[in-house]
Amino acid sequence: MSRTLRLHRQVIERARLWAPVFKAASVLWLVLALFMVLPWGVLLIEEDPDAMAFGLSILLVLSAVALTWTVTFHVPVELKPWQMFVLTTLSWVTISGFASLPLILGAPQLSFTNAVFESVSAITTTGSTVLVGIGDLSDGLKLWRGIMQWLGGIGIIVMGIAILPFLKVGGMRLFHTESSDWSEKVLPRTGGIAKATLGVYGSITVLAMVSYWLGGMAPLDAVVHAMTSVATGGFANSDASFGAYAQSPHLLWLASLFMLCGSLPFVLYIRVLRGARMALWRDQQVHGLLTLLTIVCLLLTGWRMWLGTPPFEALTHVVFNVISVVTTTGYASDDYTLWGPMATVAFFYLTFVGGCSGSTAGGMKIFRFQIAMLLLVSQLRFLIHSSGVFASRYNGQPLTDEITRGVVAFSFFFFLTIAGVALGLALLGLDFITALSGAATAVANVGPGLGDIIGPSGNFVTLPEAAKWLLCIGMLMGRLEILTVLVLLTPMFWRR
Amino acid sequence: MSRTLRLHRQVIERARLWAPVFKAASVLWLVLALFMVLPWGVLLIEEDPDAMAFGLSILLVLSAVALTWTVTFHVPVELKPWQMFVLTTLSWVTISGFASLPLILGAPQLSFTNAVFESVSAITTTGSTVLVGIGDLSDGLKLWRGIMQWLGGIGIIVMGIAILPFLKVGGMRLFHTESSDWSEKVLPRTGGIAKATLGVYGSITVLAMVSYWLGGMAPLDAVVHAMTSVATGGFANSDASFGAYAQSPHLLWLASLFMLCGSLPFVLYIRVLRGARMALWRDQQVHGLLTLLTIVCLLLTGWRMWLGTPPFEALTHVVFNVISVVTTTGYASDDYTLWGPMATVAFFYLTFVGGCSGSTAGGMKIFRFQIAMLLLVSQLRFLIHSSGVFASRYNGQPLTDEITRGVVAFSFFFFLTIAGVALGLALLGLDFITALSGAATAVANVGPGLGDIIGPSGNFVTLPEAAKWLLCIGMLMGRLEILTVLVLLTPMFWRR
Repeated sequence: MSRTLRLHRQVIERARLWAPVFKAASVLWLVLALFMVLPWGVLLIEEDPDAMAFGLSILLVLSAVALTWTVTFHVPVELKPWQMFVLTTLSWVTISGFASLPLILGAPQLSFTNAVFESVSAITTTGSTVLVGIGDLSDGLKLWRGIMQWLGGIGIIVMGIAILPFLKVGGMRLFHTESSDWSEKVLPRTGGIAKATLGVYGSITVLAMVSYWLGGMAPLDAVVHAMTSVATGGFANSDASFGAYAQSPHLLWLASLFMLCGSLPFVLYIRVLRGARMALWRDQQVHGLLTLLTIVCLLLTGWRMWLGTPPFEALTHVVFNVISVVTTTGYASDDYTLWGPMATVAFFYLTFVGGCSGSTAGGMKIFRFQIAMLLLVSQLRFLIHSSGVFASRYNGQPLTDEITRGVVAFSFFFFLTIAGVALGLALLGLDFITALSGAATAVANVGPGLGDIIGPSGNFVTLPEAAKWLLCIGMLMGRLEILTVLVLLTPMFWRR
Repeated sequence: MSRTLRLHRQVIERARLWAPVFKAASVLWLVLALFMVLPWGVLLIEEDPDAMAFGLSILLVLSAVALTWTVTFHVPVELKPWQMFVLTTLSWVTISGFASLPLILGAPQLSFTNAVFESVSAITTTGSTVLVGIGDLSDGLKLWRGIMQWLGGIGIIVMGIAILPFLKVGGMRLFHTESSDWSEKVLPRTGGIAKATLGVYGSITVLAMVSYWLGGMAPLDAVVHAMTSVATGGFANSDASFGAYAQSPHLLWLASLFMLCGSLPFVLYIRVLRGARMALWRDQQVHGLLTLLTIVCLLLTGWRMWLGTPPFEALTHVVFNVISVVTTTGYASDDYTLWGPMATVAFFYLTFVGGCSGSTAGGMKIFRFQIAMLLLVSQLRFLIHSSGVFASRYNGQPLTDEITRGVVAFSFFFFLTIAGVALGLALLGLDFITALSGAATAVANVGPGLGDIIGPSGNFVTLPEAAKWLLCIGMLMGRLEILTVLVLLTPMFWRR
């Protein structure tokens, strides 16, 4: 008797621990449902049969929200760190699941695997696609692909600025001057930061929409591409990606600009708006990104010109595709793997780099390379002068043990994850370059891989089902800064 | 007048600084010349025309020694740390140069580039070859290829144990219990350690020779393969590498054993001989290597069996080739790139790993992965418990800042070097897999790459000249633990 009672109590205890996590996640589901109303409205006006799919999806998501709220009605949403860890992973997984509903129910009638792959790729702003004939999709579905990436983008920024530093994951702890503030005050701060970020993010997106539209895109294309540029997502409204605009260099330059905007730290925009005019310009990470882009673009443009491409054309396509890969957007204006083996190898490296921490970009992020470089220089100085310790500083802050250890832990497991996913893909029969570049492009949230199958003019639809699931795991791991997910997989976490 | 005088003095001053470096290097040249006498003798007895080539080579090397000694007759050989840095790189480069003489003057009549590639590959115990028709070479040249690798092997161990820790490079500082002893007493200690190491190294080599001979190899083959196994070099006496013994599984198992012996820390053998019987068994790095080998071999054997290979055959070839790549020997008994894409990807990863620090093996070395793993675990613990610092220990020693920084600096520049070499190879027109695996196999001092050209059944001779020079730089950088060379390339070093 008492045993049953104890078990009963344990179950209730467990439920009580999980309830606030689900309640918090359900708020995000509600936001998702609200955003589904937009494509639904468009489809209703256009009297497109896909409207039904969105109506049904909204109903399903709202049911899930309602059910969660009914069950957790009296539970206050106060999250401890471990619950935040669970919430972070749980919300990205569940949102990807819900977001895939219209793709299953609507015209493309994707299989469950394909639909989940497409929505995980969207929500993580990766941009790999399994859809063929994107140009023929209904306007509502095109819009939905854009909205998924746009929501993913803002989710990443807010997570990076407000949640991860609180969990001591990610790089943003390095970029905050009031570093003592992190500890406990996360919830009140989150509101203010989220609002300001949303304002900036929304404004840049609107600016991009108007620019694209004035630049000659159809209104819907302008809207979708604006959303997927600023989110550094990379979904386009054509199977040819941005190749559809290859004859409009001004659009390629505009898109390059907006992808770059999406990959800069959003806190810096806020600081600039609050009066610190030079904040963006003085940031060491921004310097690093711009320096890297300049060097790589100059070298590749020189290479392309040497092979006979006219200078302006070479520069335009190099800048567009390099920015696209480094910012982890993943648009392609051209099949750059046809630029020769040197370009293929160079783009393989660029896949890993990523933009700035605190932006919508994925990858390893510039600051980790800069910190590794600082440690290298410091070690060389130590070897040469063979005495004394040389404290390195990054962005004015001393490089503490904690930061070094964080960088090592992240980088090591980042590579392990890519290695594991690639090995899995190879086990499923994919060739060397597809397996390696596929794993890298997924974990770094870039989009296109290399080789004939998943290269910039390829498509992920032909991959085996299991490969798609592996890539989904890779995309989510990469998006959640690896360690956030890894923590959940340790027995230590659950014993705590 | 006084200006000329000052300039004159400066030149003399410079010469005085460099003289002891060259004098020390010339001792090593003398050793090289003495070892050239062996193949010379064999060729004289066999009345082979190649004897002339060795005679001339010995004369040239001895002239260089004599010249250096004449010029530096009164200079005492007392080296400061910066001179040790210069000596380390200088001696490997010059010895590679002198060792290539018989290959240019002798029967294969290699071009300068090919000869230098072959001897750099030998002295760094990499084992990539540009020779075709190795079976038809004169006995003297076969022997010389073995001797070059064997000398390279002992050179690496002594450098790793006695020189690099003094320069604060490499991992051996981690593995020494009397760590306070490093500072100044390096020269008196070096002698003792070098003698003991040479004893162990020589004994294992003789044991390998006898075993191979009893196992059925011809005497010369037994001698050469023994030298290149224990040195984890990988030169064989046949174009088919160890594939020539594919029908003699006992020879494959013997070779696996001796390659493994060559990749364990040699100080531990000495400690075992001095009475600490469990020294080898208790070492964390040895554990790591054996665990890794066991897991990888079981997985790959399972995979091979699943594809239909008989169990014993599968196990034999998997163990042999995995040990060959992980210990950075580079023999091949079979073209493992035909075992399917999973095996190709797995062998690509194994290329990076390397054996233990303080052995003849190259690569990143096991302990660096273990330290990265410790930092990862420590970071996860920090994230979960969100307070307190958890000091990690490796082999009983605390992981200090200096060690972490050393690991990060090495790993970062190791990858940068591979990336740079691969980009250069791709620029020269090599395809993705050849460029990437070629760079990795050179810097990790393994030997074979992947793909049709430089894979286990390929040959490096068809590569463009510039590619061979790039790979030589890569092999030397890898062999000298990267930072030793990098230091010389900084303006900081020369300003000092």
